[in-house]
Amino acid sequence: MQKPSIPKGTRDFSPLVVMRRRYIFSTIEQVFMRYGFKPIETPSMENLTTLTGKYGDEGDNLLFKVLNSGDFAKKADATNWDERNSNKLASQISEKGLRYDLTVPFARYVVMNQNDITFPFRRYQMQPVWRADRPQKGRYREFYQCDADIIGSDALINEADLVMIYAEAFEQLGINVTIKINNRKVLMGIAQTLGIEDKLTTFTIAIDKLDKIGIEGVEKELLERDFTTEQAKKAIEIISFKGDNEATLAYLKTVIAPSEDGKKGIEELETVWNYLAATNFDFTKLQLDLTRGLNYYTGAIFEVTANDAKMGSIGGGGRYDDLTGIFGLKGVSGVGISFGADRIYDVMEELNLFLQQQNNFTQLLFCCMTSKGLAYAMPLAAKARKAGINTEIYPTDAKLKKQLDFANKNQIPFAIIIGDSEIETGQLTLKNLNSGEQETLAIDAAIKLITENSIM
Amino acid sequence: MQKPSIPKGTRDFSPLVVMRRRYIFSTIEQVFMRYGFKPIETPSMENLTTLTGKYGDEGDNLLFKVLNSGDFAKKADATNWDERNSNKLASQISEKGLRYDLTVPFARYVVMNQNDITFPFRRYQMQPVWRADRPQKGRYREFYQCDADIIGSDALINEADLVMIYAEAFEQLGINVTIKINNRKVLMGIAQTLGIEDKLTTFTIAIDKLDKIGIEGVEKELLERDFTTEQAKKAIEIISFKGDNEATLAYLKTVIAPSEDGKKGIEELETVWNYLAATNFDFTKLQLDLTRGLNYYTGAIFEVTANDAKMGSIGGGGRYDDLTGIFGLKGVSGVGISFGADRIYDVMEELNLFLQQQNNFTQLLFCCMTSKGLAYAMPLAAKARKAGINTEIYPTDAKLKKQLDFANKNQIPFAIIIGDSEIETGQLTLKNLNSGEQETLAIDAAIKLITENSIM
Repeated sequence: MQKPSIPKGTRDFSPLVVMRRRYIFSTIEQVFMRYGFKPIETPSMENLTTLTGKYGDEGDNLLFKVLNSGDFAKKADATNWDERNSNKLASQISEKGLRYDLTVPFARYVVMNQNDITFPFRRYQMQPVWRADRPQKGRYREFYQCDADIIGSDALINEADLVMIYAEAFEQLGINVTIKINNRKVLMGIAQTLGIEDKLTTFTIAIDKLDKIGIEGVEKELLERDFTTEQAKKAIEIISFKGDNEATLAYLKTVIAPSEDGKKGIEELETVWNYLAATNFDFTKLQLDLTRGLNYYTGAIFEVTANDAKMGSIGGGGRYDDLTGIFGLKGVSGVGISFGADRIYDVMEELNLFLQQQNNFTQLLFCCMTSKGLAYAMPLAAKARKAGINTEIYPTDAKLKKQLDFANKNQIPFAIIIGDSEIETGQLTLKNLNSGEQETLAIDAAIKLITENSIM
Repeated sequence: MQKPSIPKGTRDFSPLVVMRRRYIFSTIEQVFMRYGFKPIETPSMENLTTLTGKYGDEGDNLLFKVLNSGDFAKKADATNWDERNSNKLASQISEKGLRYDLTVPFARYVVMNQNDITFPFRRYQMQPVWRADRPQKGRYREFYQCDADIIGSDALINEADLVMIYAEAFEQLGINVTIKINNRKVLMGIAQTLGIEDKLTTFTIAIDKLDKIGIEGVEKELLERDFTTEQAKKAIEIISFKGDNEATLAYLKTVIAPSEDGKKGIEELETVWNYLAATNFDFTKLQLDLTRGLNYYTGAIFEVTANDAKMGSIGGGGRYDDLTGIFGLKGVSGVGISFGADRIYDVMEELNLFLQQQNNFTQLLFCCMTSKGLAYAMPLAAKARKAGINTEIYPTDAKLKKQLDFANKNQIPFAIIIGDSEIETGQLTLKNLNSGEQETLAIDAAIKLITENSIM
């Protein structure tokens, strides 16, 4: 007999975990909807032609590929087959792959449905993605992404909305966060000022590692990548500037003034802040060393970190100027954010932020002392359910101890005990399983009492 | 440039469809929870060893297999490789497969978590499954299943609960249904009476095709499968009996009286009905030709059909006695039901049962006539959102016609128009885009009016 197991990097979610995760998703979702975002869902499998080449070589290697049905070997190239060239054969024997993120499927969706979409289009999407990454703590092969994007508008008020969404969602979840903001054009401005415009990617990738390898590490990496000593020193000096937003901005203006891109970036930051200031919102933090590594951001970049927990970013995003270009629809600007649901879960668990409500299953158990009680309990249970109480009837006339033990293990707060005298009189025994108190009363009174005392 | 597409048999869901599907799922889910069912979620990918051999040969062929990462060819058997034996190679180059249903993963979950589960365990699960079936109308390669099972109890009150769940869920969805019930033991009783006990499976599979091939077809099939003419005729006579439950039961008692299994089956049906009768519930229909084809049912079988739409079953289930045995946990009885979400969707669409609520996205659009208006609108929009109104600010000062056109296309019912005079006075222009009416009022009054007039 095989001992069952699940693939490494995947997870079963128990009822409690499902409820807590759902609480996170529905909280975020409600904020999305308040801001006019609409949900879409895309298939788990995409054609490999849709996915391949969109995530770099490393990404391509991390795609889960779905083996073609039927006689897959038949269509494979003979030479590749005889060489057992896994690399080349993969795309010949599989046409489909599992979704690697929600961004590429969204771009594909927009292009395929462009005639039915009214732009600007605010969409959100919360679905699992799959990556054949080496599993480790906090990194899974199947995990949820939770994205909101506004596509078809380059107006900066969209950036402000996304910042507000971050603020509201995390406030509702009870997590103190810092919302960091920067702008790719500011980074370009710095690069231009230093005369390393052609090395912008090298520059941002190096800075992105700051947390991991420290200032010295970054400097070393820049020098290895053909930065002059002076360029490396100056680059690090600039991105290390510490001060509040106003001071940072003033500093930036003196440093990158000659760069047109830099000026534009500063302007964009100020515009976003003006929108936010209009709502008395002032807790974004301009952080010059924020780069988000990814090349495709062209304007604002965001990152969110939890103030009270040791954890990497729990959210991130930015402005991109050509998401749908890869599928033939040019010139569509977009801006989006993502919530890191798994990390948010871990932070909430660490900070003990899940409430009793997220732990709420059955609230009332009918315990019948005789088999006659079971039929008697049926209409009473129906009444309780109609009143909104999650109700079970213990399915046999087992010993009361066993039934109450079941209630305790399932954290059911109330039990109604039905013996022969209860059936005769209609006066039931209601037991509060937390306090141990019990009283005798009719079903309507019992329901009223449970409703008043339950966290529902 | 590639023209993007999605794999055949898969679907993108637009916002409207997502909302409607979600309405179906959450309605069913709430009923599940009222009856004490708890959600679990299992990984999309299972080890192939978990899935293979559980669904028959046909099922094995319909499993989507996930290609191993890295050098998959290396581990494959040399002879199979040289023969290009796809059939044998499949399991050598893929270790994982996509979930084919929710039942086998649930059985695996129960076995793996048996020490943490308090039995009887009421679980529900709503997740997608994948089958490499030939796509056709109403049949997809990725679709959702929606299952509730009670495991670890053979008490018949569980059957009654599941019937109640069907009734309540479909009532809430507004679908008139017939809940059909039968019992495998009754079918066994019929088989024993006819002396075809060893051909029970042949018998039930043939009857299961009744809708498709008609009485003559069933008779023909039985004769081909070594039934005598008399056995075939008698079998068809019995399962064709028409009458209300009482009459059917009386008939059955005369016909299958000699069979112990038959008697037990009749008793079980009566017990379930007694529980249901206690709640004044009397609309299950005993239907002797209901077999549900599947071999693993051992007691009650259920099927639900919509009365007002042409559609196969929109729900089904039954009692099984050894679900977890395949993974080494013997003697655990269970009973479960499934909702056919895709078909339910189609029925609701056909019968026009989706309400305006399931169509409700942005309720209020701020239209700014000048760019100054955008910042002005920010705190007003925040206020509206706080009041629970889904709100967008049109992100530019485009011409009013364009902005209202955006509102119309998105079926946004209210617009607040902000020009210079509105900013000066704080008196806003609120336009009801359905009626065309507009009035001038302050933000708080506008919010009040929208809240009162919105379907939220």
